[in-house]
Amino acid sequence: MTVPGDFRSIDGGVAAPLGFVAGGRAAGIKPSGKSDVAGIFSEASVCSAAGVFTTNVVRAPSIRYNRAVVGRGLAQAVVCNSGNANACTGTGGFDDTMQMAGVMASKLAISPDLTLVCSTGVIGHRLPMEKIESGISNLQLTADGGPQAAEAIMTTDSFPKYSAIEFDTASGPVRIGGMCKGAGMIHPNMATMLAFLVTDAVIDPDLLGTILKPAVDDSFNMISVDGDSSTNDTVLLLANGASGVAIGTDSDLVDEFSHAFGVLCVDLAKDIVRGGEGVSKVFSVTVKGASSRTQARTIARSVTSSNLFKAAVHGSDPNWGRILCAAGYSGANFDPDRIDVWIGPFKVFGGGIPQEYSEVDASRYLDRPESEIVIDLHTGPADAVAWGCDLSKEYVEINAEYTT
Amino acid sequence: MTVPGDFRSIDGGVAAPLGFVAGGRAAGIKPSGKSDVAGIFSEASVCSAAGVFTTNVVRAPSIRYNRAVVGRGLAQAVVCNSGNANACTGTGGFDDTMQMAGVMASKLAISPDLTLVCSTGVIGHRLPMEKIESGISNLQLTADGGPQAAEAIMTTDSFPKYSAIEFDTASGPVRIGGMCKGAGMIHPNMATMLAFLVTDAVIDPDLLGTILKPAVDDSFNMISVDGDSSTNDTVLLLANGASGVAIGTDSDLVDEFSHAFGVLCVDLAKDIVRGGEGVSKVFSVTVKGASSRTQARTIARSVTSSNLFKAAVHGSDPNWGRILCAAGYSGANFDPDRIDVWIGPFKVFGGGIPQEYSEVDASRYLDRPESEIVIDLHTGPADAVAWGCDLSKEYVEINAEYTT
Repeated sequence: MTVPGDFRSIDGGVAAPLGFVAGGRAAGIKPSGKSDVAGIFSEASVCSAAGVFTTNVVRAPSIRYNRAVVGRGLAQAVVCNSGNANACTGTGGFDDTMQMAGVMASKLAISPDLTLVCSTGVIGHRLPMEKIESGISNLQLTADGGPQAAEAIMTTDSFPKYSAIEFDTASGPVRIGGMCKGAGMIHPNMATMLAFLVTDAVIDPDLLGTILKPAVDDSFNMISVDGDSSTNDTVLLLANGASGVAIGTDSDLVDEFSHAFGVLCVDLAKDIVRGGEGVSKVFSVTVKGASSRTQARTIARSVTSSNLFKAAVHGSDPNWGRILCAAGYSGANFDPDRIDVWIGPFKVFGGGIPQEYSEVDASRYLDRPESEIVIDLHTGPADAVAWGCDLSKEYVEINAEYTT
Repeated sequence: MTVPGDFRSIDGGVAAPLGFVAGGRAAGIKPSGKSDVAGIFSEASVCSAAGVFTTNVVRAPSIRYNRAVVGRGLAQAVVCNSGNANACTGTGGFDDTMQMAGVMASKLAISPDLTLVCSTGVIGHRLPMEKIESGISNLQLTADGGPQAAEAIMTTDSFPKYSAIEFDTASGPVRIGGMCKGAGMIHPNMATMLAFLVTDAVIDPDLLGTILKPAVDDSFNMISVDGDSSTNDTVLLLANGASGVAIGTDSDLVDEFSHAFGVLCVDLAKDIVRGGEGVSKVFSVTVKGASSRTQARTIARSVTSSNLFKAAVHGSDPNWGRILCAAGYSGANFDPDRIDVWIGPFKVFGGGIPQEYSEVDASRYLDRPESEIVIDLHTGPADAVAWGCDLSKEYVEINAEYTT
């Protein structure tokens, strides 16, 4: 049996797994003229498909559309445009989503029912369908196109985010590739967290969903750039089986695959935080010794979402009071007199009172681009990690710009 | 019967009602040398007392102490220091709170059990008890001292916040006075929302609590400066009966008093938002046509707490997408296709699609120091109003400063 964790990074992003091709191009949706239409296609065969979608009551038509596709468990292609989220566009917006699927399906000679559709960018404007159709028609989908696809789904992201890994099994190697875009916000409206994950393993749709949900909970659902969750947030996972390696429900391989998949998701999720608007530093909050995973998650997320603590990180201020305060109003119950709080190697609070430490050294620690906060509740075996970023003046600047 | 709402502003803040005196002075707790100890005293008699306290799991010792006092329903004095929150200070911190009560009680020749104690400022440091004791001993409590008391409870508040009203009843006039301090955050730690309200009406403690809770829910609980709720948040209400006007449970006067009291609370709460850190503009979000008050409150608060919309207000960007998005992730359910969204006089969204309006005029509207957002859900009779402020670079600047 292969040791879980024994996997290696490979090039290619979403086109790294066998049988997948991808690409991106500029279709003129973005005024900047930058790349704005992306596609992923499983040349090899139809894929098992699973998805996780925004919980926002205000949803883009693509969410309803993709839910239906994923509900059938099968897909073979993804088409995504950036520059326009096609949200709050009424029934016409739904027609546009269907039409995007149709154009992509014709191009690839597959059924529109097998084509997933995502949009990200400004809301409240109908898609420029002529540009989109010509963009899709002219898309080049190749085995080298993973990075181009990642480029084409960007909005205000400061860099393209993609990754791929490979690991060996007794039946041969399996590959997982992914790309995503940021939770930061786009001029002039909110953007979207999108993640596209593909693998050449053989996995049935039910198991795929079972693997996807907890991985998303521990990665994309544990990051916060600004606490705003969008109308279009989507994570999709496709498995085309091209490697021939079957990940069955009873197999040890499920654990191995889940572990590798989870690592890839965390890697991509952290990239979203790193690429958030105005972000100069990122930090993790680990809550351990919790009586339940929910308790640990709630507290960790509350601290990464606190404007006050985010501003403190920006200023390298080892302000543990704000950590305690955000933990305290998280909604999770705990005994403040039992907890320990660490900023990197510095224990700053314990036994209900402040600890002795060098504020100068702790501040220097927070100067780093990445820092770690640990809260030990000392009440149980559960833990969770969340990732957040500093709150900078640049964030305000970017998001206070006027629309027109 | 007097028409509810028929009341007038009067001078004096918390010392405006009959039989109350107040004052503030500098005791050297704040390095700036500014006023930092405040007191309120009912010379006339013991008061009925009610209070509402922070729900944060991490609580200052004064919270536990005041809960006990209010639990007995009687109080006669309040002592409050600013510059040090006496939070996260262990059992020693509780002793300090008790001692503050004792010193104030000795000065006034009342029982310590009748003395409420509040602290606000930096956390994690023990109170400088010598300074505090001498500050309390030297406090001048007078009928003119309301404004001085309001000054002495400030932390980073940009102005002192106090107000008083008087209204006539068949039995004679009744007065209500109040003061509060900001929900903004203090260098180097979180500050506190404190509000002290007093009246010369005759009201028993149970009724006082019944009046206080909904008024706080509709005022201090509907404001957001940055979404962080502190370890020390406290609202206290004392009634000394000096006017001789009895507000009984069966009386029409209860409605009248409650209405006047509610208006005063909203007035003070809005001042807290206006005086928030780095605030250049405030806005209200009214949610109407909701199926329940909880739904209306949840949506209104979600919009006032959205960093993205707050940044848009800062930049006078009529970014209705961010309003819809924040309403959508609030946790309250609604049908986006049925709602109308208004920015001041401009209907920006309705029937599931964007409306025609002048973005330039809407932006000019948001340039105002105060603006109004209305969301009509068209599903029921309930409504709620929340108040928020813009997110500015100054907020980040203030809160990113290093502690030492």
